[in-house]
Amino acid sequence: MSRDSERRDSERRNGNGGANVLAARSRGPVHVIGAGLLGASVGLGLRERGIEVTLEDLSPTTVALAADYGAGRVRTAEDPDPALVVIATPPDVTANVVERALAEYPNSVVTDVASVKLAPFEELTRRGVDLTRYVGSHPMAGRERGGAIMARADLFVGRPWVICRDGDTPADALATVEAVALDLGGVLIEMTPAEHDRAVGLVSHLPQVVSSLLAARLVPATEQAIGLAGAGLRDTTRIASSDPELWVQILGANRAPVVDLLDAFAADVASFADALRDPELTGAKRRIADHLSAGNNGVSRIPGKHGSSERFTPITVIIDDTPGQLGRLLTELGELGINMEDLRLEHSPGAQIGFAEIAVLPEVAERAVTDLVERGWRTL
Amino acid sequence: MSRDSERRDSERRNGNGGANVLAARSRGPVHVIGAGLLGASVGLGLRERGIEVTLEDLSPTTVALAADYGAGRVRTAEDPDPALVVIATPPDVTANVVERALAEYPNSVVTDVASVKLAPFEELTRRGVDLTRYVGSHPMAGRERGGAIMARADLFVGRPWVICRDGDTPADALATVEAVALDLGGVLIEMTPAEHDRAVGLVSHLPQVVSSLLAARLVPATEQAIGLAGAGLRDTTRIASSDPELWVQILGANRAPVVDLLDAFAADVASFADALRDPELTGAKRRIADHLSAGNNGVSRIPGKHGSSERFTPITVIIDDTPGQLGRLLTELGELGINMEDLRLEHSPGAQIGFAEIAVLPEVAERAVTDLVERGWRTL
Repeated sequence: MSRDSERRDSERRNGNGGANVLAARSRGPVHVIGAGLLGASVGLGLRERGIEVTLEDLSPTTVALAADYGAGRVRTAEDPDPALVVIATPPDVTANVVERALAEYPNSVVTDVASVKLAPFEELTRRGVDLTRYVGSHPMAGRERGGAIMARADLFVGRPWVICRDGDTPADALATVEAVALDLGGVLIEMTPAEHDRAVGLVSHLPQVVSSLLAARLVPATEQAIGLAGAGLRDTTRIASSDPELWVQILGANRAPVVDLLDAFAADVASFADALRDPELTGAKRRIADHLSAGNNGVSRIPGKHGSSERFTPITVIIDDTPGQLGRLLTELGELGINMEDLRLEHSPGAQIGFAEIAVLPEVAERAVTDLVERGWRTL
Repeated sequence: MSRDSERRDSERRNGNGGANVLAARSRGPVHVIGAGLLGASVGLGLRERGIEVTLEDLSPTTVALAADYGAGRVRTAEDPDPALVVIATPPDVTANVVERALAEYPNSVVTDVASVKLAPFEELTRRGVDLTRYVGSHPMAGRERGGAIMARADLFVGRPWVICRDGDTPADALATVEAVALDLGGVLIEMTPAEHDRAVGLVSHLPQVVSSLLAARLVPATEQAIGLAGAGLRDTTRIASSDPELWVQILGANRAPVVDLLDAFAADVASFADALRDPELTGAKRRIADHLSAGNNGVSRIPGKHGSSERFTPITVIIDDTPGQLGRLLTELGELGINMEDLRLEHSPGAQIGFAEIAVLPEVAERAVTDLVERGWRTL
């Protein structure tokens, strides 16, 4: 490896806001209950930083698999109390496992990583469990497929990691959980359980339901109609391919905020449909335009590349729909020294070509088009 | 240019199902009424094939600009009757312009390219206009910004081009319109006006309204909640940034199918919300799961890369969120001989890194990961 690529490599490895991947903020042992995707990823990430991790799972197969993967070792009776217990079980048993862990490890801090936070917190409060040593958390990470087999030490790198404290949480318990989240590369965000559940209801659960219901309208459509589908339909329905069983559980555990959001959304749909039903009525066109403008305003609030795409100029390149074409385009872009900030692909039904929309800095857009055309590419 | 790149170049230019871009199926002169994005693109595309094009627009500036761009010349009284009149005006004046064109050019075939087809057809029928020489059409092409200045000769290449005939359309009128669509690179799809409007209502208008209303729910959200946004929210709300004025007009012209679709969609949202409101009721969980499963089935019907992504294996690469990084990754993929079939980018709020999910053929996935890691990239 050249000195230059070594330097680049080192820069990449330290890309996480300057975090040194070898130094650990947290101390072990950390005991992980539930050795699926999230639990095994916590184990892998902490062990990479030299922290001792023990594992536990209802399924002996799952825990053995996670241990084989290097996520930790099975806990024995001789092990000292853990500094932290991380509960990564399905959301519907989280409260039970938290209660048991607090009783079983009377000197340990306990956290969970479930995607809903209020329901387990309320259930534990209702049962009168002392929650002084409990801090709920939620790393916004996941993969399309679950299980320890999909686990990664860097699953949480760069992802928001929500920490839910209440007024009674002691500083050292909070610090214990935050240290683990930071060691795993997460970006800390502090919220109450209720704030968290409303927030994920809005940015994750509502879009999931809306996307699923929109995609469901395609079931009875003719082939001919589906053949007219473009990028807009593909984008709006992509997450409709999510696992129904998992989502029945998530939505059930966050039903109050999601029901409120669905009711408000349904009222908007009805308002829109009513205005469109008789667009000549006074104010109807205005109401339709207001709904659409509110959509403009809403989408402009989303951070990230797509939300700030006005920083870049899009160039659409026509590509043959053959395996080599896109790779060749990207290689040639590299050869031309053109930095691509974003890329979207669109496939043309019925034609042997596709479209690659690349986003470049405005100042290089003209040269990029000239150079690409010179090399025989067609741009739109 | 090398012989090899010449050959590749020629293959690219002939990528549209073997169409020879120099030989024309259609004959001129073609008269284009409305010299905006679509009209000027029709003119540019036909002139590239040597067909005579004349232009007309209510705005003298617009028509002069389109002529300057090479989309055709302004029609004069001395010009012979056109073989075909293409009407590319806003949808709310389409019927008027079609009626006038049929009267003014009694020997010409007349088509329009408006994005709704039934309303103008019914309006013309109601007025008793003889539609023997009229064939409605709709090329599924557009750009985010309109106007002749954005026009391209290859705007329609590879895009579906819907042709609406009724039982009385003579074969030669149909052939005249189809020849122009084919010369412009479109993929012909035949539908009745009602079938067309229901189809675009489903695959284009409903997703637009749903995405706008979903994004509108973000307006009152806290910054903290928006900070948890991920790829799912970004995808489902991307088209919510569309132009409200244009969509008021499109939706108004296709209100019957869109209102039906919105009513059915609203009923699904209500059904879902009701099941979630009391998930312990008999059948409630089943109903939620059924809605989500129907979403799975619907999205699997969409053609194109994303709909058939099971053909490819996704690899997620961590990239610094700096201009050079993505370009470097793509260049290195090219150097490694790895063909990328698709790419999605995700930006991590609050962190200086992002994620590039690349899709590769399953048989090269393992080698791709090994090679990338060897070069210092981190994959998830």
